[in-house]
Amino acid sequence: MSEIQAVQWRDDRLVLLDQRLLPVDEIYLEYDTAAATADAIRDMVVRGAPAIGITAAYAVVLAARAAWAQAGSGWREAIAADIVRLGEARPTAVNLHWALARMGEHFPGIEGDPEAALLEEARCIHRQDIAANRRMGELGTALITPASRVLTHCNAGALATGGYGTALGVIRSAWSEGRLAAVYADETRPWLQGARLTVWELLHDRIPVRLLADGAAAWLMQSEGIDWVIVGADRIAANGDVANKIGTYGLAIIARHHGARMMVVAPCSTIDMGLADGGSIPIENRAGEELLELSGQRTAASGADSWNPVFDVTPAALIDVIVTERGVVERPDTARMRELMGAGISPRSTRSSRRKS
Amino acid sequence: MSEIQAVQWRDDRLVLLDQRLLPVDEIYLEYDTAAATADAIRDMVVRGAPAIGITAAYAVVLAARAAWAQAGSGWREAIAADIVRLGEARPTAVNLHWALARMGEHFPGIEGDPEAALLEEARCIHRQDIAANRRMGELGTALITPASRVLTHCNAGALATGGYGTALGVIRSAWSEGRLAAVYADETRPWLQGARLTVWELLHDRIPVRLLADGAAAWLMQSEGIDWVIVGADRIAANGDVANKIGTYGLAIIARHHGARMMVVAPCSTIDMGLADGGSIPIENRAGEELLELSGQRTAASGADSWNPVFDVTPAALIDVIVTERGVVERPDTARMRELMGAGISPRSTRSSRRKS
Repeated sequence: MSEIQAVQWRDDRLVLLDQRLLPVDEIYLEYDTAAATADAIRDMVVRGAPAIGITAAYAVVLAARAAWAQAGSGWREAIAADIVRLGEARPTAVNLHWALARMGEHFPGIEGDPEAALLEEARCIHRQDIAANRRMGELGTALITPASRVLTHCNAGALATGGYGTALGVIRSAWSEGRLAAVYADETRPWLQGARLTVWELLHDRIPVRLLADGAAAWLMQSEGIDWVIVGADRIAANGDVANKIGTYGLAIIARHHGARMMVVAPCSTIDMGLADGGSIPIENRAGEELLELSGQRTAASGADSWNPVFDVTPAALIDVIVTERGVVERPDTARMRELMGAGISPRSTRSSRRKS
Repeated sequence: MSEIQAVQWRDDRLVLLDQRLLPVDEIYLEYDTAAATADAIRDMVVRGAPAIGITAAYAVVLAARAAWAQAGSGWREAIAADIVRLGEARPTAVNLHWALARMGEHFPGIEGDPEAALLEEARCIHRQDIAANRRMGELGTALITPASRVLTHCNAGALATGGYGTALGVIRSAWSEGRLAAVYADETRPWLQGARLTVWELLHDRIPVRLLADGAAAWLMQSEGIDWVIVGADRIAANGDVANKIGTYGLAIIARHHGARMMVVAPCSTIDMGLADGGSIPIENRAGEELLELSGQRTAASGADSWNPVFDVTPAALIDVIVTERGVVERPDTARMRELMGAGISPRSTRSSRRKS
């Protein structure tokens, strides 16, 4: 059973598993320009906040190669348009900007052809993300008592990260420790990340999972019982407010109503200490066709209007615990988030993560 | 602009608008046996609690015709198997059993061929349902202040009733009175009644509506504001607990969290005074394919398991008001529901609605 790797660097090219086609087809697409990679991010060939960040880091390598070929030692100016284009590919996940900023920090010190040095940094970001996921898996599992019943939303798995996953990393780890009595996954409309990606991933690892309609989650909690809702994040503000896939906020409300606990699992690259709270996190609205059509077939009457924000913001007060690779924040607030981000020596530069917003 | 009539009696046959094909195709199917009609109910050619009840009433006419042709004056015994089959077509909506019981009450008094007498009773049930919807539209509208923003779930419209609708009857009436600033509809997975039926109905009446993913409702309340959630019901217990389309319970929780009010609109044929509370309402589970496939295309990985209850129970404590044709029950409980069902002279027999469970 090989590990799922949605983002790869092979033969001097970026290779992305086309997540639009899963679970029916498993097709890998190759990219050798930053512009095409930006399109792939926007069109959701690759999705998931950490995976988008890693993809953008590799795209900077592609951009630098082109800039060096075109402008030689003037590559730092020549690369600027590509960096902007990558940064604009999707608005909500801050990991994209974090990765671009971290790659950019290396520009001044590079002499000559930048490709090798930047590739090394991109690979480092990728490796550190996988290591962070493994660590979060352990930390999250430690919170989960045996025979727990868990529910996840969207896909915060290997497909959404460098590998292993954030929320699904905790579920993988807790499952391997024998702590889970049942795993449920919301189908996660409109893009069906739960049905298409999370179920595929968990079955790949032989973790039994039951799929439900998003609207059924409250009744699941009431009639079958859920101990933990475990989700990823696209951006976490300085006070612990969490932007994540649309539906997360409602899940947090119904979890609190039923006494189920809410766990958000995300690497520190997802934390945006430059935003005081979730109110200023940009929320992406996507095309109404995601709601009005299914598999190219019209499902709503012609002329229908839609409201399709694809993220929402869950206030920190509804979150029981945020799990990061640096540690766990229970009942998150600004003081506890500052303590986390200021504490200890991190593999990532705190300064750069502060600068990115 | 003709009125939508999903259930019709034409040329001695039952005619049903095939709701599985909307909004793409508007096809009417003809039925001349009770067995085929029971299949149509089970397969959701027709759906919506009041519409199922009316359909069952007409199916009794078809059953009586066959029983008379086969057994003459022994038709009351010959019809029994068809009545059982109709009653088993779907478990949650009590209107089905209510209609069968009401038709059955007329059996003893009929002399000779029963068809004409039973058709008259079925037509009466149908007419009374439309009248009840109009009355509920008025009563519900009286609760709605101008410039209100409303959200509905599933389809509780003309398609789900004899005509005009319960929840959509209130929305139609409130819209015509100029009281609505915005109408939103959940798409309502897995069967997409919101996307496919509610949007179609409202556009038919030129009422602007915005469609959203079920999981987006909490964020809608938080970011755009909603004054009323307005839904129908499939069965209401004696204490005011409401079984309705899966997702209603979660909506009620998030509505309460945001201070939005929850209105349930249903005729008294939906009220089952024989059940003390919602705990004993049978909840239908349907095939997992509704979740695992879309338009015949597989969306979840092969081998996926699913959890697909298609109704849930909202406790009375989360409901602000139940609107019936007999009057409005605010903060429903057993005493207030008893007062409603015992009070006044109803066009329907109180005794029969009590007997049906």
